[in-house]
Amino acid sequence: MNRLADRAVSLPRSEIRVLFDRAAARADTIRLEVGEPSFPTPAHIVAGAYEAARAGHTGYGPNGGLIELRELLSEKVEKVDGFVAHPERIVVTPGGMNALYSTYFALLNPGDEVLLPTPGFPNMDGMVGLLGGNPVFYHLEAAEGYLPDPERLERLVTGRTRILFLNTPSNPTGAVFPASLMRDLVEFCNRHNLWLLSDEVYDELVLDESKAHIAAGIYDEEDRVITVYSFSKVYAMTGWRVGYAVAPPAVADLLRKLQEPQVSCPSTISQKAAVAALRGPREPIRAMLDTYRRRRSAAIRTATSAGLEVVAPAGTLYMLVAVRTRGRSMFRFALDLLDSQGVSVAPGSVFGPGGEGYVRISLAAPEGQITEGLGRLAEACRQEELVHT
Amino acid sequence: MNRLADRAVSLPRSEIRVLFDRAAARADTIRLEVGEPSFPTPAHIVAGAYEAARAGHTGYGPNGGLIELRELLSEKVEKVDGFVAHPERIVVTPGGMNALYSTYFALLNPGDEVLLPTPGFPNMDGMVGLLGGNPVFYHLEAAEGYLPDPERLERLVTGRTRILFLNTPSNPTGAVFPASLMRDLVEFCNRHNLWLLSDEVYDELVLDESKAHIAAGIYDEEDRVITVYSFSKVYAMTGWRVGYAVAPPAVADLLRKLQEPQVSCPSTISQKAAVAALRGPREPIRAMLDTYRRRRSAAIRTATSAGLEVVAPAGTLYMLVAVRTRGRSMFRFALDLLDSQGVSVAPGSVFGPGGEGYVRISLAAPEGQITEGLGRLAEACRQEELVHT
Repeated sequence: MNRLADRAVSLPRSEIRVLFDRAAARADTIRLEVGEPSFPTPAHIVAGAYEAARAGHTGYGPNGGLIELRELLSEKVEKVDGFVAHPERIVVTPGGMNALYSTYFALLNPGDEVLLPTPGFPNMDGMVGLLGGNPVFYHLEAAEGYLPDPERLERLVTGRTRILFLNTPSNPTGAVFPASLMRDLVEFCNRHNLWLLSDEVYDELVLDESKAHIAAGIYDEEDRVITVYSFSKVYAMTGWRVGYAVAPPAVADLLRKLQEPQVSCPSTISQKAAVAALRGPREPIRAMLDTYRRRRSAAIRTATSAGLEVVAPAGTLYMLVAVRTRGRSMFRFALDLLDSQGVSVAPGSVFGPGGEGYVRISLAAPEGQITEGLGRLAEACRQEELVHT
Repeated sequence: MNRLADRAVSLPRSEIRVLFDRAAARADTIRLEVGEPSFPTPAHIVAGAYEAARAGHTGYGPNGGLIELRELLSEKVEKVDGFVAHPERIVVTPGGMNALYSTYFALLNPGDEVLLPTPGFPNMDGMVGLLGGNPVFYHLEAAEGYLPDPERLERLVTGRTRILFLNTPSNPTGAVFPASLMRDLVEFCNRHNLWLLSDEVYDELVLDESKAHIAAGIYDEEDRVITVYSFSKVYAMTGWRVGYAVAPPAVADLLRKLQEPQVSCPSTISQKAAVAALRGPREPIRAMLDTYRRRRSAAIRTATSAGLEVVAPAGTLYMLVAVRTRGRSMFRFALDLLDSQGVSVAPGSVFGPGGEGYVRISLAAPEGQITEGLGRLAEACRQEELVHT
């Protein structure tokens, strides 16, 4: 066998994707492992893409996205996220994942350190490692509401630290950062001359109505914040692959240049769908949010009644549930749960060391599936008790 | 200013993209710089995507593509390209560009050498360098019909040579490799234990009816060929971003794994368009091919009458035209041509050192634009003669 790239071979396979594929092979599985909205993309968005394609908008677009879309996104960022972003600062990507990947690609030299939250965004340490960076985890504590502590972050900074990665509303904890914390975190980056990469793809999915999303960009006075947003979850558009980064001009320019060898440009048709999403009515989006809020309440209620311990999420489409794995790996636990109960969940191990002892369930699934899945999860945990105690 | 990644900063910007953006800013420009089909995507393909999206196929798909599409592609490869490719060997990507990029990512360790043709695929040396490889050019000679010479290739092989990159039908020369050469090239790779990366995105765009596309996969008995195909040109689907790699199982598996951190998955809607393309009638595809053949004849005729020297292409959607730049860089020449004549062409410099002295025009543009553009190019060359001689 001919040689393969070491970096590619050593990238851990996404355990969520393994479960995704395995769950997809069983028609009756309750799918709670990914944030796949139970809703199809709203009809006006599908129609907008179709009309554009039928009108001949089926050719290449510019690196970094159609100007029409970037102008609408500039308005959206100002209105929803509360800071000013000229269209030149906006780079449309094939999904939020590619915006994260491309940003690391644009910023990391070999050996540069990235501060990553745990429990945090799945497989982010793998992505950083793949691109030559060194992931350094900072631990989020239940007792602190899973919010980063700038003082503890201070102790992790070295001469090689280059990027602080944040995620609010936070996957998988559901934490929503308060304004004062966000300001402190931007100041922390100013003090140490770090880039701040802020994943805010759940900006419009705050489930606890007493909270509000606060964007890092609001406090960025030194052009060091790169923010990533996406159409996937907010608009039920996961399959279209449209995300975007908001970045300082020099970084945005690099991202556009790096897009050419990677993917040439994002899908023009998907971008036209995104245009229709931004121009269209807000009611379908609002209705989905209301549904997610009801699911959250139902999930907390069901899990608690069934004796499960949960982390009540303030935002995102996820909820962490504590489980005891009795010596098995988290991944093994998730595989066993899938095989024995027909329920697919994300094992805590994908969220870094801080995910140990938890599984993540998706609130994007229909309510009946969530409550049934939680019931079966509780049942599996009870059987474990009987077997092992 | 905070630090950026050296590899990202040092990646040369695509000169074609600079011309693309500059040309797009002038409504009256004759656009011959990219292979953008003048046809919109055929209506049955657009309709297929729409029906699928309306039926709710708007969610994530698996890494590497929908099984439905991969099964159809397996049939296509056998029928059109003449070799057997199980669906597990097929990895759908967001465009052929990403298939190339991901393959280098999967195969190259730092310092590994890649043999690249020149004149050859635009900016491929930049892509290889970005991913840590060392591009080593092999020169294609007009006198040899721009076909690679295995004997000269032998002399370029070192202990670090890892990949031979081929492209047939060839961009920008239009060469179509004969079967005997393809067999020799596969044997060359066997002898030196190299991967063979064969870019065959123009497989169904052979313009010279006396020739036929020959796939590298036909001669691959040692699982060392990775082939890249695309829907972009053959189906006039550049804006949808659907390509695919056909690879040995171990490589296909790596490509699927690497897709997750890069882009998660290709657009489900675009993949449904590709399904409709493969299931739909052949007439619209055949009609486009016939048109390209007529354009090729018209382009050769017009250029020759106007005193321009051309490389008559046997395949692809391009034609090389010799120009004298009188000391200016090729890029400068193309910029001046755009400014003075309102014609946008690809400067030879993007095809490596072997592209010097040529510009590439696209046969994907309407015939009137091609002939008008060639006339203006000839005029610019004549003015040069007057000024400089």
